[in-house]
Amino acid sequence: MVCRMENETISIKPPVMVVEWIGSAAEGFLRLLDQTLLPIETQFLDCHDVQTLWDAIYRLVVRGAPAIGVAAGYGMVLAAQSAGTDESDDAEDFLAQLGSAREYLCSSRPTAVNLAWAAGRMAQHAKTAVDAGTEVSAVRERLLAEAREIHAEDERMCARIGQYAAGLVQGCSGVLTHCNAGALATAGIGTATAGMYAAHAGGHRFRVYCDETRPLLQGSRLTAWELMQAGIDTVVIADNMAAQVLREKRVQMVITGADRIAANGDAANKIVTYGLAIAAKHHGVPFYVAAPYSTFDLELASGDEIPIEQRDGQEIANGFGRTTAPSGVEIYNPAFDVTPAELITAIITDRGIIESVTEEQVRKVLISG
Amino acid sequence: MVCRMENETISIKPPVMVVEWIGSAAEGFLRLLDQTLLPIETQFLDCHDVQTLWDAIYRLVVRGAPAIGVAAGYGMVLAAQSAGTDESDDAEDFLAQLGSAREYLCSSRPTAVNLAWAAGRMAQHAKTAVDAGTEVSAVRERLLAEAREIHAEDERMCARIGQYAAGLVQGCSGVLTHCNAGALATAGIGTATAGMYAAHAGGHRFRVYCDETRPLLQGSRLTAWELMQAGIDTVVIADNMAAQVLREKRVQMVITGADRIAANGDAANKIVTYGLAIAAKHHGVPFYVAAPYSTFDLELASGDEIPIEQRDGQEIANGFGRTTAPSGVEIYNPAFDVTPAELITAIITDRGIIESVTEEQVRKVLISG
Repeated sequence: MVCRMENETISIKPPVMVVEWIGSAAEGFLRLLDQTLLPIETQFLDCHDVQTLWDAIYRLVVRGAPAIGVAAGYGMVLAAQSAGTDESDDAEDFLAQLGSAREYLCSSRPTAVNLAWAAGRMAQHAKTAVDAGTEVSAVRERLLAEAREIHAEDERMCARIGQYAAGLVQGCSGVLTHCNAGALATAGIGTATAGMYAAHAGGHRFRVYCDETRPLLQGSRLTAWELMQAGIDTVVIADNMAAQVLREKRVQMVITGADRIAANGDAANKIVTYGLAIAAKHHGVPFYVAAPYSTFDLELASGDEIPIEQRDGQEIANGFGRTTAPSGVEIYNPAFDVTPAELITAIITDRGIIESVTEEQVRKVLISG
Repeated sequence: MVCRMENETISIKPPVMVVEWIGSAAEGFLRLLDQTLLPIETQFLDCHDVQTLWDAIYRLVVRGAPAIGVAAGYGMVLAAQSAGTDESDDAEDFLAQLGSAREYLCSSRPTAVNLAWAAGRMAQHAKTAVDAGTEVSAVRERLLAEAREIHAEDERMCARIGQYAAGLVQGCSGVLTHCNAGALATAGIGTATAGMYAAHAGGHRFRVYCDETRPLLQGSRLTAWELMQAGIDTVVIADNMAAQVLREKRVQMVITGADRIAANGDAANKIVTYGLAIAAKHHGVPFYVAAPYSTFDLELASGDEIPIEQRDGQEIANGFGRTTAPSGVEIYNPAFDVTPAELITAIITDRGIIESVTEEQVRKVLISG
């Protein structure tokens, strides 16, 4: 991957391999880092068929919208390996089997937009090639090239966010982040973490405070782990310690990812982001959101239109091998909250920085970027 | 216990028996609710000797400054049962053995001020009785009466806080609290919870949102459990969901306990209280602290003089029976934070409500109360 910083070109490798295609289009396979075992074990899962990948997506072996999209692209290459082989590579049969594989893969996480998008793009690519008279064996090659292109696009998206955010990180001795909008959620250097990796690669040294992120602890299990792989000075805190960290002036910026951003800049993200933005404002510390163009939903006028997913209370009551709440108690477990635009100092996208977060500026940067 | 509310007298029993003396001074014993097993099992531990109580305090079978003080009072009765029996109740020997028991008990939690205070009060009571020529067997009776008085004083302290706080709770359909400043931490109806029990006993119905309180989960394990025992509508949330609960107008007040309050009203409490106070202010929701007179340290000019205890990072990294942070990662685990007086709407004490939190008002209420 290549990332331009201040007219200089710096290569920044992701701290860890999340998704990788190994071998040829006809006989290769998809290797995934098994994120369910982190931070204890670093093991890889090799997917030689679509069923194994379906299970891996379902079990969160691979997670994060961009990373799932990239994995799905390669998943369609796996599907193409076995499709159309019955009747000496009959093209119609091949396309029908690819279509089934696409539907099957999408059912592993039905709400994952990038999954449906990537699998659909691959199916369309196959159809276009077949329609142009390409041999099935050659279509398999083209599908691998297309999956690699989806992969490379994701790396470039991360690198661009890193390019824009690095300058902000370079002004800080401490940065606070929440959840995992990191390299583990993408095929590149992450979104919220991209500026950290870029600044670190540029020689700047700083500490990152990672909220552990209850209930599923993506911050302590994943973000802290990946930052340590890159040699970045990392500190884990419980979520409720962030206000104290801000008060003690240990950090000069807060940066998180986003799951969905409305046209006016209101940003839905993992629960607590809103509380963190309030605490940052109280202490006069800038609060940034980092997210690619694809995270924006310009059809939503404001964050009020973003539905908040409620998750199973057992995530809180029985999170990590022990019951920690009374039997039968009601549990409120919203997965996300919405941070209103007025609490966001800037949104860093792959198309540029939205410096004053208003609908006008959002559209200007996204369309001109 | 009796609690006066609006000129009416209402008896409010604690929702659960935390400490109880069973039997006579000569042959009775101390029964403790084993809080280490909550919220899964409700079991009691009977202490027939000082060694068993020492271990119970050390292991947090009994916890919370007021409850530990009450237990220590009864612990000195246990000590008196075996003291001075060798030489037909020799008084000097009796007092010496009581003195040793006092030191021994205090070593179970050296920083627990109420423990040292109660054990010392009991030792002094024994000495005064012996000096007045009272027979050792009669001194044992007097010690049980004194321990029961410490117990009753604690109940009255809680009841008075409940009396003052009930009116605030009565105006709310939802209340948010953090950690456990509840009945389980006292011999009565708690401090932060006292107004809830009093309002509930008075017929008011409302919901309480309990922060789970990472890392040790006192909110989900203890507060939610005790509120449920009283039939109060209880909801557990992860700490990081409090800002969202405030935003959704689910609560109209936040109330917590305090570990130490400076002369100007700055209040040290379990970590996150400060962040919670910021979030409450942002939403225009009143933020109350409930604490007895004994929590104030008027020799401290402000919260800046309160030292913040740092605890073992393993509480965060290995909290739930599974390792949830990378091996070797640095962990920042401050046990407390300090909420500045300007974020506190009022402090509810057993001597009255400090309505505008300034040094002048603190001294006025505490001295006239």
